[in-house]
Amino acid sequence: MAGARQVSNRSQVDPFIVMDVMEQARRLEDAGRSIIHMEVGQPGTAAPQAARDGLTAAMAQGPLGYTVALGLPELRARIARLYHDWYGIDLNPDRVVVTAGSSAAFLLAFTALFDAGDRVGLGLPCYPSYRQILKALSLEVVGIQTKAENRFQPMASDLPDLAGLIVASPANPTGTMLDRSSMAALIEACHAQGAAFISDEIYHGLHYDAPAVSALEVSDDVYVINSFSKYFSMTGWRIGWMVVPEDHIRTIERLAQNMFICAPHASQIAALHAMEATEELEANRAVYARNRELMLEGLPRAGFDRIAPPDGAFYIYADVSHLTDDSLKFASEVLEKSGVAVTPGLDFDPERGRGFLRFSYARATADIEEGLARLKTFMDAR
Amino acid sequence: MAGARQVSNRSQVDPFIVMDVMEQARRLEDAGRSIIHMEVGQPGTAAPQAARDGLTAAMAQGPLGYTVALGLPELRARIARLYHDWYGIDLNPDRVVVTAGSSAAFLLAFTALFDAGDRVGLGLPCYPSYRQILKALSLEVVGIQTKAENRFQPMASDLPDLAGLIVASPANPTGTMLDRSSMAALIEACHAQGAAFISDEIYHGLHYDAPAVSALEVSDDVYVINSFSKYFSMTGWRIGWMVVPEDHIRTIERLAQNMFICAPHASQIAALHAMEATEELEANRAVYARNRELMLEGLPRAGFDRIAPPDGAFYIYADVSHLTDDSLKFASEVLEKSGVAVTPGLDFDPERGRGFLRFSYARATADIEEGLARLKTFMDAR
Repeated sequence: MAGARQVSNRSQVDPFIVMDVMEQARRLEDAGRSIIHMEVGQPGTAAPQAARDGLTAAMAQGPLGYTVALGLPELRARIARLYHDWYGIDLNPDRVVVTAGSSAAFLLAFTALFDAGDRVGLGLPCYPSYRQILKALSLEVVGIQTKAENRFQPMASDLPDLAGLIVASPANPTGTMLDRSSMAALIEACHAQGAAFISDEIYHGLHYDAPAVSALEVSDDVYVINSFSKYFSMTGWRIGWMVVPEDHIRTIERLAQNMFICAPHASQIAALHAMEATEELEANRAVYARNRELMLEGLPRAGFDRIAPPDGAFYIYADVSHLTDDSLKFASEVLEKSGVAVTPGLDFDPERGRGFLRFSYARATADIEEGLARLKTFMDAR
Repeated sequence: MAGARQVSNRSQVDPFIVMDVMEQARRLEDAGRSIIHMEVGQPGTAAPQAARDGLTAAMAQGPLGYTVALGLPELRARIARLYHDWYGIDLNPDRVVVTAGSSAAFLLAFTALFDAGDRVGLGLPCYPSYRQILKALSLEVVGIQTKAENRFQPMASDLPDLAGLIVASPANPTGTMLDRSSMAALIEACHAQGAAFISDEIYHGLHYDAPAVSALEVSDDVYVINSFSKYFSMTGWRIGWMVVPEDHIRTIERLAQNMFICAPHASQIAALHAMEATEELEANRAVYARNRELMLEGLPRAGFDRIAPPDGAFYIYADVSHLTDDSLKFASEVLEKSGVAVTPGLDFDPERGRGFLRFSYARATADIEEGLARLKTFMDAR
């Protein structure tokens, strides 16, 4: 071969289907239409005031150069304390790795745990980037079809031969959680075959009944990934963390030094201050709780009554397979006719997703009320 | 295998040798010794005042959520304009990808261009993380020994069979540049075998005579990686960019969406404002220029007279093979006896690096003067 280099095979990851919906929404808004955004996966709120104030003060004080690769020691210690406060766990701060969002944590975890060609399992539906990052790292994605009666979570009895398993609780797109016994059974099944267990806990803090169980309540031999994006309302700051087994710390440190140097210093400082902003964060959560009640009342009334148990996060995953076998086309029709943007299930589950929609309730309550009214009108006229 | 998962093979990257020096420096400082830091690879200055002010204003105005994956359109356009101002190039802003530092750019570039097992070349000595990131991505590192008479840069005639080549100009650790004809010959040699050409240009702007040549002046079929860390004095902000060929934009966009979501929003805003802070940045550069003069005078006087042509960046790479065959031990002795921390060459070149030291002149001029005086005293007494 001669001439310029072509792209690699592993870079040919799937596009996000929702991008088509977002582009359509943008065109409609440009044309003057009012659009309610139930497709977004992030809070509409800013980082807590204390986080922004803390950063402004820090910017006046020092140069904010590189931090050590594993993160500011005071932030790692404060995160360790969160495990005491939230789960009653006594966590060694040395096991806490501050990362550039959960995205960097996934890259670090997958690289630390798996060699090219290894098989990594995940329950479908799931956050689409798991699959794409695994592919980009030359890993084999093993999709495990979950069942509605299991809250769309994988069960220990479902596991094929794997080098590792990723679970999320509360999950995106379903909002469902794994209870303690299901989590423990999955961890045990993984360890029985020498497979790694990676627990995505980025929606922890956003529960509306019982809090979510951390994999660290069950075992120390797990990777736990968390983020300041959702509960702490800091998506754009790209700051998160990971807890790893003690005998993996040194490996992760070397990888982090080389792959990332460090997480953004400014974001680390903002995150440290955000952890003290409980009042503001709980006020945000109260809005989600109110929105969720409205959704649980309004969606079934509009005709979306086949929904996954909405334990946490800010999503409702609805089975619309009795209404369509093309969720992208259906989402486009909803958007065009009602001005409500929703996410087709295809991004989360390339097969069954054609019969599902994800509704987000992360935005202001007035938007949720308006969106639900529009959805009812749309469905009544259908 | 049963029980908890072990780490992968590809995660077993080399430790940074300089960490031992830094740890020794920390212990000496804790014990009350004064240490001059000539081992650091970052400016001692903060992000420009305009960058910090711009961010403070932006934090008061909006939530700073995710940006689109390729970066804020106004930042991409402003970066494109830099190519006009610096090189006289008319660059399509669509080709500019804003990244979380050059680190993220390397991860994106290597993933987009290479499949597991591909051979990627680099001239030795070089920035150590190239090698480690390539290994972490299951790529084969092909080290090319460079020659002092070629400014420690690889030459077109040196290239073995490769899927891609990484060059840096000005380089770390040497500070040397590739001239236009050498750059053009390398690009031509790469394209003749269908290999990708990746140009690390993160020290551009930090030249003291002729400015550095961008690979984009020679060809559009290259990946150019740059950063706000060095000239723009924003290391800890983790913000940089990459310019890619037009037919690779869509691939990079999908990878970036999945691997990073976006670069830190706050850092993108700060970077946009930093680009207007020419006066402050040129004042920083004047300090480096003065420091460099002092180094070029003081290092030979102390006995370090076998140095690479110091075209740019803020490093001097000195051949000390007539003084030692163990640069780590020698650096430790320099530190212990003179209180000056320097970097052993071993991180940059695992073989010949045992006979080299890297001196950084990125800090305040007073530190440089004191460090040079100490080095002379040390060498005179040796």
